[in-house]
Amino acid sequence: MRILGIDPGTGICGFGVIDIVTKKSSDKNAPVNSVCRGKPKMVDAGVISTPPHTPLPERLLDIYDSLHEIIKMHKPDVISIEKLFFMQNVTTGISVAEARGVVLLVAKQEGLPIFEYSPNEIKKAMTGYGHADKKQMQEMVRLHLNLDKIVKPDDAADALAAAITHSLISKVDLA
Amino acid sequence: MRILGIDPGTGICGFGVIDIVTKKSSDKNAPVNSVCRGKPKMVDAGVISTPPHTPLPERLLDIYDSLHEIIKMHKPDVISIEKLFFMQNVTTGISVAEARGVVLLVAKQEGLPIFEYSPNEIKKAMTGYGHADKKQMQEMVRLHLNLDKIVKPDDAADALAAAITHSLISKVDLA
Repeated sequence: MRILGIDPGTGICGFGVIDIVTKKSSDKNAPVNSVCRGKPKMVDAGVISTPPHTPLPERLLDIYDSLHEIIKMHKPDVISIEKLFFMQNVTTGISVAEARGVVLLVAKQEGLPIFEYSPNEIKKAMTGYGHADKKQMQEMVRLHLNLDKIVKPDDAADALAAAITHSLISKVDLA
Repeated sequence: MRILGIDPGTGICGFGVIDIVTKKSSDKNAPVNSVCRGKPKMVDAGVISTPPHTPLPERLLDIYDSLHEIIKMHKPDVISIEKLFFMQNVTTGISVAEARGVVLLVAKQEGLPIFEYSPNEIKKAMTGYGHADKKQMQEMVRLHLNLDKIVKPDDAADALAAAITHSLISKVDLA
């Protein structure tokens, strides 16, 4: 199963694609037909970004076009996106919601099942603690994906975290 | 000039189309080539609505498709949309912002100039008072458009108010 994770934003919108591959257990003592879930594997990660001071409608159109392209290229089975619950900063919150609207629209147009997780759910799934800090999250993304270095920029790592969270919470075990 | 006004929302998204027609002044004492601005005329008004409990991505797709249709039918010159500044209710505010993201995307895709006005600017332009109540606003929409009755539902009237505000603030005097 291929999961596309999205960290929405109008200036920078992160995306991360992972594969979850499962195979039959090779342990001869395992019950018949049991599967062992493979580790998630990173396929791609990056950001859709626009120069500062780009008007909002242009940014939204950029997100719309780029996301359609990413989906056409990677053909994910589902999309996992960070949910917006409350806002520390209203201006940023509004612009994240505007970007989220476009992301949800594109996912629907592409016929992808959509799963949404709150920031706390993602932190809890990744680290066991709903208020984990950024460094801890980045380190867990690195470990889950078996990478040498943490993923940069932050928005790409956050998008991968959303994708990994879906694999952990939904107990994906389909090849 | 034809103006499309939008009152964004995911459950109900109001729209209103008005024409501003200007003609040469018929007053023989008027300066040469002076024009008198015509009153705005309502062309169409209504709402894009989805049944309660419809999933958000479906609603956003409905707004996207319907708005493209409305623009193709009425061919407005500009779009005027209510700006979101702060939120009394965060949940409603987030969903309005998600709808706004899709509206701005469609306007950009259709190549329309976009004008945004805050609720206070709209109230002030329509009634002279930035904190006018709903009834007063509806009555002013009725008077501006020379209608017999107030426009229903509220969301359609609010969209017309956004369109009229643009004609008043931008001092539109192009036929």
